[in-house]
This record gives sequence, structure tokens and C-alpha cells, in this order.
Amino acid sequence: MKTKILLKEADMPTHWYNVMADMPNPPTPPLDPNGNPVGPEALAAIFPEELIKQEMSTERWIKIPEEIRDVLRLWRPSPLYRAHRLEQALNTPAKIYYKNEAVSPAGSHKPNTAVAQAYYNKQAGIKRLTTETGAGQWGSSLALAGQMFGLEVEVYMVKISYEQKPYRRSMMHTWGASVYPSPSTRTNAGRQILEQHPDSEGSLGIAISEAVELAASRDDTNYALGSVLNHVLLHQTVIGEEAKKQMEMAGDYPDMIFAPCGGGSNFGGIAFPFFADKAAGREVQLVAVEPTSCPSLTKGLYAYDFGDAIGLTPLLKMYTLGHNFVPPGIHAGGLRYHGDSALVSQLHYEGLVDALAVPQLETFEAGVLFARTEAIIPAPEATHAIAAVIREAKRCAESGEPKTLLFNLSGHGHFDMSSYDRFFAGELRDYDYPEEAIKASLADLPQVKFPQN
Amino acid sequence: MKTKILLKEADMPTHWYNVMADMPNPPTPPLDPNGNPVGPEALAAIFPEELIKQEMSTERWIKIPEEIRDVLRLWRPSPLYRAHRLEQALNTPAKIYYKNEAVSPAGSHKPNTAVAQAYYNKQAGIKRLTTETGAGQWGSSLALAGQMFGLEVEVYMVKISYEQKPYRRSMMHTWGASVYPSPSTRTNAGRQILEQHPDSEGSLGIAISEAVELAASRDDTNYALGSVLNHVLLHQTVIGEEAKKQMEMAGDYPDMIFAPCGGGSNFGGIAFPFFADKAAGREVQLVAVEPTSCPSLTKGLYAYDFGDAIGLTPLLKMYTLGHNFVPPGIHAGGLRYHGDSALVSQLHYEGLVDALAVPQLETFEAGVLFARTEAIIPAPEATHAIAAVIREAKRCAESGEPKTLLFNLSGHGHFDMSSYDRFFAGELRDYDYPEEAIKASLADLPQVKFPQN
Repeated sequence: MKTKILLKEADMPTHWYNVMADMPNPPTPPLDPNGNPVGPEALAAIFPEELIKQEMSTERWIKIPEEIRDVLRLWRPSPLYRAHRLEQALNTPAKIYYKNEAVSPAGSHKPNTAVAQAYYNKQAGIKRLTTETGAGQWGSSLALAGQMFGLEVEVYMVKISYEQKPYRRSMMHTWGASVYPSPSTRTNAGRQILEQHPDSEGSLGIAISEAVELAASRDDTNYALGSVLNHVLLHQTVIGEEAKKQMEMAGDYPDMIFAPCGGGSNFGGIAFPFFADKAAGREVQLVAVEPTSCPSLTKGLYAYDFGDAIGLTPLLKMYTLGHNFVPPGIHAGGLRYHGDSALVSQLHYEGLVDALAVPQLETFEAGVLFARTEAIIPAPEATHAIAAVIREAKRCAESGEPKTLLFNLSGHGHFDMSSYDRFFAGELRDYDYPEEAIKASLADLPQVKFPQN
Repeated sequence: MKTKILLKEADMPTHWYNVMADMPNPPTPPLDPNGNPVGPEALAAIFPEELIKQEMSTERWIKIPEEIRDVLRLWRPSPLYRAHRLEQALNTPAKIYYKNEAVSPAGSHKPNTAVAQAYYNKQAGIKRLTTETGAGQWGSSLALAGQMFGLEVEVYMVKISYEQKPYRRSMMHTWGASVYPSPSTRTNAGRQILEQHPDSEGSLGIAISEAVELAASRDDTNYALGSVLNHVLLHQTVIGEEAKKQMEMAGDYPDMIFAPCGGGSNFGGIAFPFFADKAAGREVQLVAVEPTSCPSLTKGLYAYDFGDAIGLTPLLKMYTLGHNFVPPGIHAGGLRYHGDSALVSQLHYEGLVDALAVPQLETFEAGVLFARTEAIIPAPEATHAIAAVIREAKRCAESGEPKTLLFNLSGHGHFDMSSYDRFFAGELRDYDYPEEAIKASLADLPQVKFPQN
């Protein structure tokens, strides 16, 4: 039985797919704290012109420069798998496929945009990129991409991860990046937090504040973000474009597509190219899977909020738990974000994208079953999609429906084995829905006037 | 520029290549301590019949059962890469190719034989496999393979690695195996060592003794070895078979092939299928690369010696540093073995296989350069081949020769990042050639009569 569906290097996408071209309503603009749309010039302090253009563009197809494809081909196209062994273990009539993004040298889908961002910054004459990272998936991807184009990379890593998961830090060093625990004393934002909370373990929001502050204050330095923004999701659409071709080669088409959803690039990457079909009338259900302990899409408010913890970024219209919300310490670090991509949020608000929240223990059970059937040990982020797929496949086993399910295996768990250890030792737990904390954080949302358009 | 040469699943080898069919002289037989050849019946206590047949067979091609190919296809065929970026960094006219065996779920070439061994044991009605592991590449591979065929796996892990590198242990747990630090109190061999050396950090030789003892004493339990033996090298020949097809697709043929050499399966796996060409008159140089601190092929004696530390295994004619030799604590755990495959040893003795020893710091420098050009962070074992290739590519840069170089990227370094940390911190060092220790160990070689044939 055939297991992998492989594309040739020549079949690697030549263009990114821009979902903004097919959305039923125009995308909501970013706003400044006074409620005025943020124009390109305001973003120019931290982003190169080409990325700002992509952030605003409504062109359906945007050409991928050859220099970017030349790096992506180090691991792309990534394989699509038919999960025969998982299907057997579940005794389900469902057909399960997964796109394996764990094959990148950094071990996740993140390099797809890191490489593009490094390239455009290099072209714009930038010498150095700053960024934040949680468990390190994004930081290591940008370190790799910076190395490929000869850019310095400075990473602000959430302190608790810096201390508890040192090996992604080592990976960043191997690729030549500098890594600092955040909050650090290198920025006003970091010092401000440390004054109020000297023992702060950090958060993604805080680390973003630090990285943005440094990029804004230095001419030769820009900032790179690993998710949330439109251009980041755009760069990830190579995943879904390849998956579409591969599903066609398999003679199949997904009824449902699942992906983990933190900032949205993992989900947007695989789902958006299929959204094009959905917009054209084809039936396909797109399901963003998030942790029950950080449930922005399923329990958040659709409102304008800051992307970071301090309030340095423009306001984005998104499902948010409030920028002050600090999620419980679940082991899927990449999903511990208070907000969500504006594009994913808008499509969810309009009923075109579904969302589902799963608890931590269920995700680890799913991860272990996956490892013991399909052999690959998945990252805790990826196990969220697996848990959702397993739920659906079991439903199919009951109903007898032979649905076709596709998910994004967004990364491997080689740097998350301590999380698996704790799971096996019975030290992990589920968290109650953090209702009070979310209520308090949402009460603190910035008050803005909505724009007229 | 094309980077990867990919085969389809259908192109995965259907037969293993048995180098014994093409060796100019018959392979040396294993002996018992009295100098008598060890027959199949003596091996039957710890190996299934099919593997014993393969150990002795001189058939050129041995069919790979479909059940084995069905598991191998989870990651095989593995990609062959052209290392454009490394070539550029070295400014060499040499063309550098590498076979990427890091793509297996366990992260190395080891599962190629683990899957085969698990299958044949399952077929023979065995319930449980015991084995040893150093840093854990082999133990995790057998854990994975056992899981795929429903066998229990019990791993004896060299104590210092068990304590210092816990995450491969976690990987084994995730795949359902039991893992014990060796020397343990579970075996006579372990207790004997602990009596003499209560603080023993363990060694591969000791761990082999423990695993073999348990397998020999239980009817439902067999033993699996990750290298050295003929059938193990046989199973690894899928690497070289695929590489030959891929080099042909690239319109090229290697002048030199490099692979790390500890027990020999890494080297034999990629080199033996090309040896078939060499035996037929084609020019190709096969280079086994070992650490200067554990230089069995370059400084050892070609003699009969035990495969383990205690003297439980049959005697093999091999290049050995003596079974009592405990190699310095270099970070390429998989290359810390006192002996070598009998097949590789014999071919080296006959001048058909070359050997080269490289010091630890040079291997880490090579690994970092590789990571910063080709993006993949290599395992410390694999960096030995990279160091040798870099030497040769620099030689080509001086001479202007456009040689074609191929090496086996046998594994990634995701579980070796602490070694990279120590390298960057300047805490690693080279070791003087351990002349005295080797001399003492060699003085203790078993005295055997050579067989008549």
C-alpha cells in the first residue's frame, strides 16, 4: 500500500496564494490606538517594503522569488502521507492524510516564511533581524533563514522556555543566532516588566514587545514575526498548494482539513489554498484546532486588540482573549497566544472556518497513538490537529462514513521529549477554562472607534 | 539548481545486496573460544533462523519481505542531496552528494535493520527483544521497530548516556520500550561489573553482555544487535542501492564514498553496493571514517576477539583495539566500539576498503559548517564523514580536480545538541592517541587457533 505521495522539486509552487482575493468581504485594516488605519509608512520602521506590500495586497497570486525557492528546495516539496496504520488502529472507514512539515531542518513549517522574510529584508539592505520565540520553533527557523542569507538574527526567547528547553537555543546558536531570555534588561519593555514582576517567566507577548522595540529603534534592524500577519500566512500557503496537488495525485479530496491554530499561520498555510475551492462552491470543512486553555477562536471576543503584551503593535481585528491574558503553562508553546490572525478570525466570524478546542491530555494521548502507529513523534502543537482528527475518525467508525480527513503535521517533537516524559509520569493535567482571567483581560481591551469602510 | 534526487516508493529496493558474494576471499567464520567455527545451532539461542541464514549466506541478492518494505516506506526511499551550498562555501570544484538517512522517524539509518530484525523475530514467535544502546540511536530504532510488529523491547543503555542524554530514552518510552541503565543489577554480567566498579559509567561492550545474557536465558526472548554482524550490514545495503540509482539519475558516479565507521553498518550500508561495481573492475574508493580516539581500522590489530566486553559472544576476526578497551568519552557515542564488522575488516585487510581517522574538534567544525550551509544539523557520528569529505574537497580546490564525492549523512543531531553546546563553549577537546590503553587491551586478546579453511 502506497504511503507517501511525493512531488518533484519542479512541482514546488511558483506563487503564493493570497486568500484576500477570495474572501467575501474586504479584510479589516490594522488601526492605530486612535482608530485610524495604519498605513504602509507606519510599518516601514520594522518591515521591508515588499513585505508591507504583501501585507496589504489583494492579488490572488504572488510570485515566489527564485532565491527563496532555492532555499525551500532544501526540504520542499514536503511529503503527503496516507496514515494507513493510524486508520487501522482506529478501525475507521475514514481515510486520513497528513502533510509532513516536520521534514524541514528546523523541524516545523516555520521556515517557509522565515526564509521569505529573511530574503526580503536582505534585499532591502537590512543587516539584522529581531524576533521573539516561545519554545523555539520560530526562533530556530529564523536563525536558519538568517544564516542562509547572511543576516544577523537576535532572538528574544520566553524565559521559562529558555531555561527549561535549552536545546532549541543550542540549535539557534548552531545556526549563528544570538538568543536572550525575555524579559531582558536590553529593552525598555523588558525592564518595565522586570520592575513590576522581577520573577516574570516571560510570555510571547512580552518577547514581541522587546523585539519590536529594538527593531523600531535601529536603522539597520528589522523585525520578523512567525505568525498572525497576513504576509506570514501568505508564505505558508505553499503547504496547502502542494497538498492540493498531492491529494489529486492520490485521487482524493478532503472533506475536512484540520490544523493547529495559535497565531494562525499553521492553519492558514494548509487551509487557505483549499478555501479558494470553497469560495468557488466546493464543499470542504476547514477546522482550526486550539487548546481549551487558550481558546481565542472558541471563547474569545472578535474585537480590535494589540498583537503584543505592552501595546506597541497596531491594533488588529481578531478573536482575542485580551492582550493581558497569560495562558496556562501547557506544553504546546506555539499555541499560547492571546489572539489570532485577522484573516483566520474574519473567516471564522463569517462562518467559513470552524474552530474546535481540545484539552492537553487528549492531545498527548493522540500524539502517543500517532507515534506508535505512524512512527513520527509529533510536536505538542501538531498533536492538537491529531486529536481532532482522531475524534472525527472515531465518529466515522460509528456512523460508517468514509470521510477523507487531511491534517497538517506541522512539526516533530524531538525538542519536546521532556513534555512526553511528564505526560508518561502523569505530571501533565488539563486546565479549567480560565474564565475569570479571560474576563479580566477582556475588560482591559483598548477602546477604539471602528473605521468607516 | 536541483538539490534533491528523489526516488518513488516503487523504486525502493526489493532485495538486499550481500557483499559476501563478491568478496575475493571467503568470509572468516566466527569461532568459539576453543577455535572451532560457531555453527547456526549455537546462535539459535539468541537469533531467529532466518537471520542466522542471512549471517552465513553467500547469495548475492536476498529478497526483502513485503512486510518489511511496508514499514520502510514510512520514510524510504531516502533523498540524495547535492550539497551545492557546502561546495560553494569550500570553493571547490568537487561535486559533493550526500544520502540523507536522518529522515527516518528515529533520525538515523539504524531503523533499516531494526525493522528487519523485529520482523524475523516476530515471525519466529519471539515475544521480546533485548538490546544495548549507547547514545540511543540504536535503542530508539529497535523500540520503533518492535512497536511496529508488536514485540516488547528491553534496552540496556550505557549509564552515562542514560543520565546525560535523557531524551532518546524518552523517545524509546514513547515507542513503548523499557530502558535500563547499564551496568544494571538485572544480569550476572551487570552485577559482576558493579562489584568490581560500583561507579561504572558503562560501555557498549558491557551493555551487549547484559542484553545477550538475558536473551540467552529466556525462551521467548531474542537479542538484536545494531551493527557489526553480517546480517545487520546486509539490511543497510538499501542505502547504497538507492544511492546508486540516484547517482545514475544525477548523471554522475562517485570517485570516493565516505561513511562513519563504528561497528561498520553505516559504512557497509552505503559502500557495499558500490563494492559490487569495484569487484567488477570499476574504479571507486571506499573510505571508512573513524575517530582518532577509537581507531580500530587505522591502529587496531586484525585478530579474533570478542564482540562484547565480558566474552559472551563468539569470536570475530576483525580489526580490534581489544575487548577491554574503553574509548575516551568522545561525543560520537555510536563510534565508541573496540572492534569492527568482520566484513569491513576483511575488505580493509585486503586493501579494498580505505580507512581514515579524524579528531573530535575537526568533526564538530565540519558539523557546524554543514549546518550553516546545508541547513541540517548532523549527528556527531555523521560529522566524521563530513570532516573527511571537507578534507578531500579542499584537496580538490588545491589540485583543481573535479572529483565526485558521496557520503552517508547517517543521522541528525537533534538529540546531541548538548554536545554542540559544549563545542561552542570550548569544552570539547581532542584526545591523544590512547596508545598505552590499546596496548594493554590488545595484550589481553583471547588466544585461539585459526581454523583450517
